[in-house]
Amino acid sequence: MTERVRLVAAAWLLCAATIPVLLTGCATARDSRAVAQSSSGALESWREGSARAAIESFVARTTDPASPGFVPESERIAVFDNDGTLWAEQPMYVQLAFIIDRVKAMRAGHPEWETTEPFASLLKGDAKAVAAQGEHALGALVAATHGGMTDDEFRATVRAWLATARHPTTGLRYDAMVYRPMLEMLSYLRANGYRTFIVSGGGVDFMRAFASEVYGIPADQIVGSTAKYRHELRDGAPTIVKTGEIDFVDDGKGKPVGIASRIGMRPRIAFGNSDGDFEMLAWTTAGQGARLGVLIRHTDATREWAYDRASHIGKLVRGLDEAPARGWVVVDMARDWAEIYPTAQ
Amino acid sequence: MTERVRLVAAAWLLCAATIPVLLTGCATARDSRAVAQSSSGALESWREGSARAAIESFVARTTDPASPGFVPESERIAVFDNDGTLWAEQPMYVQLAFIIDRVKAMRAGHPEWETTEPFASLLKGDAKAVAAQGEHALGALVAATHGGMTDDEFRATVRAWLATARHPTTGLRYDAMVYRPMLEMLSYLRANGYRTFIVSGGGVDFMRAFASEVYGIPADQIVGSTAKYRHELRDGAPTIVKTGEIDFVDDGKGKPVGIASRIGMRPRIAFGNSDGDFEMLAWTTAGQGARLGVLIRHTDATREWAYDRASHIGKLVRGLDEAPARGWVVVDMARDWAEIYPTAQ
Repeated sequence: MTERVRLVAAAWLLCAATIPVLLTGCATARDSRAVAQSSSGALESWREGSARAAIESFVARTTDPASPGFVPESERIAVFDNDGTLWAEQPMYVQLAFIIDRVKAMRAGHPEWETTEPFASLLKGDAKAVAAQGEHALGALVAATHGGMTDDEFRATVRAWLATARHPTTGLRYDAMVYRPMLEMLSYLRANGYRTFIVSGGGVDFMRAFASEVYGIPADQIVGSTAKYRHELRDGAPTIVKTGEIDFVDDGKGKPVGIASRIGMRPRIAFGNSDGDFEMLAWTTAGQGARLGVLIRHTDATREWAYDRASHIGKLVRGLDEAPARGWVVVDMARDWAEIYPTAQ
Repeated sequence: MTERVRLVAAAWLLCAATIPVLLTGCATARDSRAVAQSSSGALESWREGSARAAIESFVARTTDPASPGFVPESERIAVFDNDGTLWAEQPMYVQLAFIIDRVKAMRAGHPEWETTEPFASLLKGDAKAVAAQGEHALGALVAATHGGMTDDEFRATVRAWLATARHPTTGLRYDAMVYRPMLEMLSYLRANGYRTFIVSGGGVDFMRAFASEVYGIPADQIVGSTAKYRHELRDGAPTIVKTGEIDFVDDGKGKPVGIASRIGMRPRIAFGNSDGDFEMLAWTTAGQGARLGVLIRHTDATREWAYDRASHIGKLVRGLDEAPARGWVVVDMARDWAEIYPTAQ
């Protein structure tokens, strides 16, 4: 567990080099939001090609009762990483942008943060100093910004933030930067009897604030990193409070562990985009019967970002190296996706 | 956590006084199984009365868009305790009977158990000596019988056991001792747009071995006590292995914590039967809008068992005392249920 916390903390804090971008704000804010997922089940934004064909072939094979690869509906489980797979993760995980903004918003009530690390460095915009403090710094930031609230209170805070926060370079709402082809994929799989789950390194309550509305995925079908909860009476009323203390990190080897614990079935299809998803895809596709692993490769520097092997965020090395031998589908965003984000409504 | 483990261990071990009954076996084994849950959504085994009327009134109110108590379908979450609420829990939790039989079955491969506690006392049928060893003994028994297997291997073991094990006094399969009125209730709620979840102190993988077939509840809609899982490579294949080390105890205050963590929404309806369900019902019914708490009271010494305040297993004191003031429905099994178990097929 400690190793995983360290890896996640390192990824988060390395990207803290981008904090100054966020601190300067963005002058081109727009108010468009993600459209609701396509209800037709059609992959309209997917260009013809080997990636789309492989996915459609798999779905046809697993849903045809006459096919040797047929999978009964009760076993049709599809899992999706979130950051970089369902929505954009550059220049930093959205949840980290939330944390930074929360520290700034809570600053007035915490004069001690002006002289207490890692808050003091964060408030001065000194990302390197924050990053140098390692995983302990991330833990302190999560505890300060996520702890002490009920899940409902926390989610309301996230929703209020999503309504006003804007991405530093696109000026879009963060929840408008979900991938339209993936919204179509969720609908397509559901139309074919698959149940769709998120399995993300992000915090589960952070995702539960928007995933139902944006992705059509209910709260109980979201597996993520969790903080501990505490049962307490507030004015005599039973209340479940987030402690902010990290309980489970759903990344790397933690993803198949989280799936086994929370979903209780090995998936038939797994979508990811980074080496943090490697073990999830490997475990999924090592199962008996028809299984499919899909990697979303970020290749579009014009419409999104182009990154894989050399990136701190969404680093993808082993997945690319082993995808051919493992039979995993690699989606090339620039080539395979006709559109990236949903059309604003 | 330690306190909860202690409470559960105490309940388990106190009932170990019944182990000798199990060790002597049963000469009247029958092979009937639970029928699949009613698909009509009708409460045929529920007699007319205040309990049934209160539940039907609640469901009508929450599903009528014109009612002020209307609940959108995405929020219709119903949770059910398992032991004593969905199936019989006397004279001991079924999972404990499984553990005892597993220790006996594994005896030949573990000669050291003949002289190692708590195994030696268990194998000698000395339940009191096992109970006297407290929670540590339960942990050792769980680790020995649940650990080291994948979830699939463990569930196959449970299913094989369920196929041959018989209840010591009824001679029925354990999974034939589910309550027919509760199978009807599950179907009735699902027919009204409710999603049904189990929230039990029992082990989640133990329940996942039969809950889908017997209750129609998929693996991911089962919240229970969990052991830690470990990711490892076996002959190069990624594998998730149960460690047997207890991670989370889903009982008492743990139930609302488990619901908040795994389901992520406060339920609209909660069914329980013991004070281990008190906090789950209290948290459920403290929520805003229409909520319902239901306690199944074991009052039928002829057809099942009659127990509540004085019982070690399924002890129900605070729930009975506070049900009237809290508006909880108390189901009287002898009065309200026309039948207890499903008709054998």
